[in-house]
Amino acid sequence: MVTGPITSLTNSRIKAVVKLRKRRQRDATGTFIVEGYRELLRLIESGSSPQTLFVSHELFIGSNEPELVARCRNAGSEIIEVAADPFRKASYRDRPEGLLAIVDQFDTSLEQIPLEADPLVLVVESIEKPGNLGTMLRTAEAAGLSGVIVADPTTDPFNPNVVRASIGTLFAVPLAITDSSTAIAHLRTAGVNIVATTPDTPLPHHQADLTGPTAIVIGSEQYGLSTDWLEGADTKVMIPMPGSVDSLNAAMAAGIVVFEAVRQRF
Amino acid sequence: MVTGPITSLTNSRIKAVVKLRKRRQRDATGTFIVEGYRELLRLIESGSSPQTLFVSHELFIGSNEPELVARCRNAGSEIIEVAADPFRKASYRDRPEGLLAIVDQFDTSLEQIPLEADPLVLVVESIEKPGNLGTMLRTAEAAGLSGVIVADPTTDPFNPNVVRASIGTLFAVPLAITDSSTAIAHLRTAGVNIVATTPDTPLPHHQADLTGPTAIVIGSEQYGLSTDWLEGADTKVMIPMPGSVDSLNAAMAAGIVVFEAVRQRF
Repeated sequence: MVTGPITSLTNSRIKAVVKLRKRRQRDATGTFIVEGYRELLRLIESGSSPQTLFVSHELFIGSNEPELVARCRNAGSEIIEVAADPFRKASYRDRPEGLLAIVDQFDTSLEQIPLEADPLVLVVESIEKPGNLGTMLRTAEAAGLSGVIVADPTTDPFNPNVVRASIGTLFAVPLAITDSSTAIAHLRTAGVNIVATTPDTPLPHHQADLTGPTAIVIGSEQYGLSTDWLEGADTKVMIPMPGSVDSLNAAMAAGIVVFEAVRQRF
Repeated sequence: MVTGPITSLTNSRIKAVVKLRKRRQRDATGTFIVEGYRELLRLIESGSSPQTLFVSHELFIGSNEPELVARCRNAGSEIIEVAADPFRKASYRDRPEGLLAIVDQFDTSLEQIPLEADPLVLVVESIEKPGNLGTMLRTAEAAGLSGVIVADPTTDPFNPNVVRASIGTLFAVPLAITDSSTAIAHLRTAGVNIVATTPDTPLPHHQADLTGPTAIVIGSEQYGLSTDWLEGADTKVMIPMPGSVDSLNAAMAAGIVVFEAVRQRF
């Protein structure tokens, strides 16, 4: 189905997109915004497709966009042509690429994460910054993790800044959202070794065995891990750091411990 | 010396701050903007001090700001009181903290980086995103690196977004800016093992010896390393990745290899 083109800045469909920047509106509609070629390509490659795809040909920067639009159309997405100015209003980016979709939120229950055959899971507790969560999802995808558990999130993973920072890996990595006590019980029942990262422990991360079923747990930027995780952990590890602990960003700390586990499993 | 308070949005001193967002103006004046408590604290602790410190008490969010202002005053900084509105205009942040300084650019010659006693140096070539360069500086500080060489930069390290992303570690880590061929010659002369990271090589980074004098070289986000570095390297390493190579952010790749070197030196 093709509608449009939209030429008015006050078009109701454009306004509806802008509203989805608010979490309340995302929760109420069960949808979120996915913008950009790379992000939408990963969505399609995950076997999903947008509800609605807003397209502004004038803003295309590459030559592959029409093919992606065709794939969405074939998958049943509503395609809406939009003039450059209203598209810029709907866009969340400084330099819009002419592709922006409304997508159904997906299932983020713990069952999404496969826990067979020595799984390697990243757990992030109460992460605050969308950019950090997005970066962690990218790192999880690169490391081929079994999945990412977002425990007690203060930023929701459907935030447009998470989607952007994740460059769409949000659609490639199994993702669960839950509270910490449920996550701990779930991992324990599955026999997964819970490895909490904290500066307040003597064991270097590289001296811990990260080869069996393992969940690496990273705390919030500001407060680190809660006592739930520190007391629920089987192992506590720290990253040896010749410089200042507070210099290491939470996403970087996650990447360093995750890739140490990848090294041990090499 | 105390001037002000500034109450007008069109005050010439405020306009001069805003102009420093442009690289041309930073280069012409040899100065740059440093904003925020953490950033200015690291500046002071590096033994430096601002030319000028703009202060807006109404915007302070903590209780330690007056002490930092006093330290700048004692170090000879010009202190200028600013009302909240003109301060917000000068500020580069969404939530200004009431502290913003104009600081002299510092010496970024290669001689700034000590190359004695098994140095560990990070080289970043043609990095494009200020946020990535800032994150790399944080990681370099955490890892206690000998220094960071920024080769053929497309973003200048005095960009306000670098200062912000670095949370002031810009002032704690020895930093050099130069072209690639000069950097390669300098490292060779000093007997430093040049380790280039690239996906197109079979040797995993953790199987290379990173314990002697070592420079870890990371390429640009978009193009990776130039042939200058690939041909000038003593060793080429790749990060083994079960997932997609293009998911790993350049700053994350730098952190993973740098902390593998820290592990080997533990």
